Amino acid sequence: MELKAIGDRFRYRMFRQDGLARVGEIVTPRGVIRTPAFMPVGTVATVKALYPEQVKEAGADIILANTYHLMLRPGAERIQRLGGLHDFMRWNGPILTDSGGFQVMSLSQIRKITEEGAAFQSHIDGSRHLLSPERSIEIQCLLGSDIQMQMDECIELPAERAQVERAMQLSLRWAERSQRAFEAEKVKGRAREGQALFAIVQGGTDATLRKQSARALVGMDFPGYAIGGLAVGEGQEAMLATLEETLPELPEAKPRYLMGVGTPEDLIEAVRRGVDMFDCVMPTRNGRHGLAFTWNGRVNLRNARHAEDLSPLDAESTCPAARDYSRAYLHHLVRAGEYLGSMLLSWSNTAFYQQLMAAMRAAIAEGRFESWAEETKARLARKDG
Amino acid sequence: MELKAIGDRFRYRMFRQDGLARVGEIVTPRGVIRTPAFMPVGTVATVKALYPEQVKEAGADIILANTYHLMLRPGAERIQRLGGLHDFMRWNGPILTDSGGFQVMSLSQIRKITEEGAAFQSHIDGSRHLLSPERSIEIQCLLGSDIQMQMDECIELPAERAQVERAMQLSLRWAERSQRAFEAEKVKGRAREGQALFAIVQGGTDATLRKQSARALVGMDFPGYAIGGLAVGEGQEAMLATLEETLPELPEAKPRYLMGVGTPEDLIEAVRRGVDMFDCVMPTRNGRHGLAFTWNGRVNLRNARHAEDLSPLDAESTCPAARDYSRAYLHHLVRAGEYLGSMLLSWSNTAFYQQLMAAMRAAIAEGRFESWAEETKARLARKDG
Repeated sequence: MELKAIGDRFRYRMFRQDGLARVGEIVTPRGVIRTPAFMPVGTVATVKALYPEQVKEAGADIILANTYHLMLRPGAERIQRLGGLHDFMRWNGPILTDSGGFQVMSLSQIRKITEEGAAFQSHIDGSRHLLSPERSIEIQCLLGSDIQMQMDECIELPAERAQVERAMQLSLRWAERSQRAFEAEKVKGRAREGQALFAIVQGGTDATLRKQSARALVGMDFPGYAIGGLAVGEGQEAMLATLEETLPELPEAKPRYLMGVGTPEDLIEAVRRGVDMFDCVMPTRNGRHGLAFTWNGRVNLRNARHAEDLSPLDAESTCPAARDYSRAYLHHLVRAGEYLGSMLLSWSNTAFYQQLMAAMRAAIAEGRFESWAEETKARLARKDG
Repeated sequence: MELKAIGDRFRYRMFRQDGLARVGEIVTPRGVIRTPAFMPVGTVATVKALYPEQVKEAGADIILANTYHLMLRPGAERIQRLGGLHDFMRWNGPILTDSGGFQVMSLSQIRKITEEGAAFQSHIDGSRHLLSPERSIEIQCLLGSDIQMQMDECIELPAERAQVERAMQLSLRWAERSQRAFEAEKVKGRAREGQALFAIVQGGTDATLRKQSARALVGMDFPGYAIGGLAVGEGQEAMLATLEETLPELPEAKPRYLMGVGTPEDLIEAVRRGVDMFDCVMPTRNGRHGLAFTWNGRVNLRNARHAEDLSPLDAESTCPAARDYSRAYLHHLVRAGEYLGSMLLSWSNTAFYQQLMAAMRAAIAEGRFESWAEETKARLARKDG
């Protein structure tokens, strides 16, 4: 695919700050990412139960794909031979790939973490693999993703401080190796100008470790910084406290990405503290389980109270799934386990998350984020379902 | 929903006959059905894995819905309270409903067929129900379907002649009761002018019984006639032989519907013998299982030979699923068990079946059905996958 000449560099521009919340844009050769941005998750090269056109029309500028899944099936070399991930899955906007490390640790059957990397067996066919920081970068370059992530060690919380520190230090060494590997890929011509490698701040919920991690990574000068290892069971309060300690350490001129988060309320609170990017399976996974996100709170469509409700999820939505189908019909589809139920609710939720980000961007741009956030959180708390 | 004033009567018009093949139209208050017509199956008020707009755009004029499934969930009275099946599932064209009888016999757990009807337990929750010819018509009127089917007894083949005859005779008596019940619904105002009740010819593969059934039903003057009890294991040859014996008994001025059929080759051979309407789960069910129908034969996308094939299923198709996605990507989606694989292949197959019917209508209209059929059957036999 020919890239439009939007610019050959990767750059972040902040338009306005309102409190700590930031509205801006990331410019990549494949398109502009309006921030704060929510990235729908396309785990195995498809945002589950959605056509790529629907993801785009919902307002997503960028999607995330998972290195772990794609390296196992269909394989990174195969995707490269087929012209790269964008053409393969018919998504011509920017794609962010994770390093694969997190899912090696959460999904693979047998794994051994060493200084070198993570040895594991595929959860699909038991085949043996070694994922190192260098191999992760190589895979992400073969996929052709626009934003790549360093490999890190992400441990479950709560954990002993010594263990958190060890994983954080290992992640720092892997950050250096990832950066060197990424530069080497550029020399080899397999990474191009305008692709970016993000570092990942680790350190659990320990403020000292987080600051230490952030400072070391900032010293290495990455084009963007992620906060990893949160939303793994520590609770919203601890997560937000950790953000408050960590974000001030990160440069204003670079985008900040909170990995794997979260609920609409999480997104609002994280944006309030200065986060620019998010990804989460929640809109699609919950959609497949019959749960809809709306401006008036969550709606559990399995609930019998919807059985004869002719109203749609949101009569004012621009998304046909939210606007044109009755709750009674959605209830029926969910109860019957029909594809169309998952399709409609994943679509509606994906659109809702994008509308939420658009509303946040507008509120920040107009300097009314705080009042918007309070009002919206009150509406979202209605739990109308 | 307001019905457009296309006409308040149900009527069939044949435009041209080419050999025994017929091209024509059925006019209903909800729209025109171009014949020969293939009806996508929307078992539980959704054509599986498709949006209603896609079914329409694929070229379907009418869909089928299953009385058995809908009476159990969400219930016919509930659908009636919600405004009828058309509004419920957002399909404003004609809908044909079956009687429920066939699926009572194939799906329900415990059943007892008596003169009165079929007593059975739901396969969903074990609840007890009696489906009689009168209750079936009542349900179909509550659903608001445009073409309704009499209840019949459909037995598995092969079967003893005596058993086939007994079921055929019972089906004749049920046809009379269905017709009386349908007239009674009109008096009650629950059926309206323009809705039609079709009779079902039974008799297994026994020519004498088929003729006897057909003649008796024609004597009762129904607006359309179905051939039931075929495609239940008797083989294509026996099915076509039975059609050849049965169809000449049916009036030229009424539509003929072959229930539950079939493969593209079955459709061509049945149209060649004078059938006007079909329904089958094959395009969607096979799509969910990774099998695509194309003009060059069946393509099994699970097959490893597609893993790096960048060509689409059909570059010249008007259906985006067939035209815009590579076989390599479809192969990946099918192997990974992804929703999008089922969605794309159900869509492509549904569109293909409609294109097949459109091509048959054009060939008949132009008096070249025989040569078209021979050519097309040769192409379809390539089994390219």
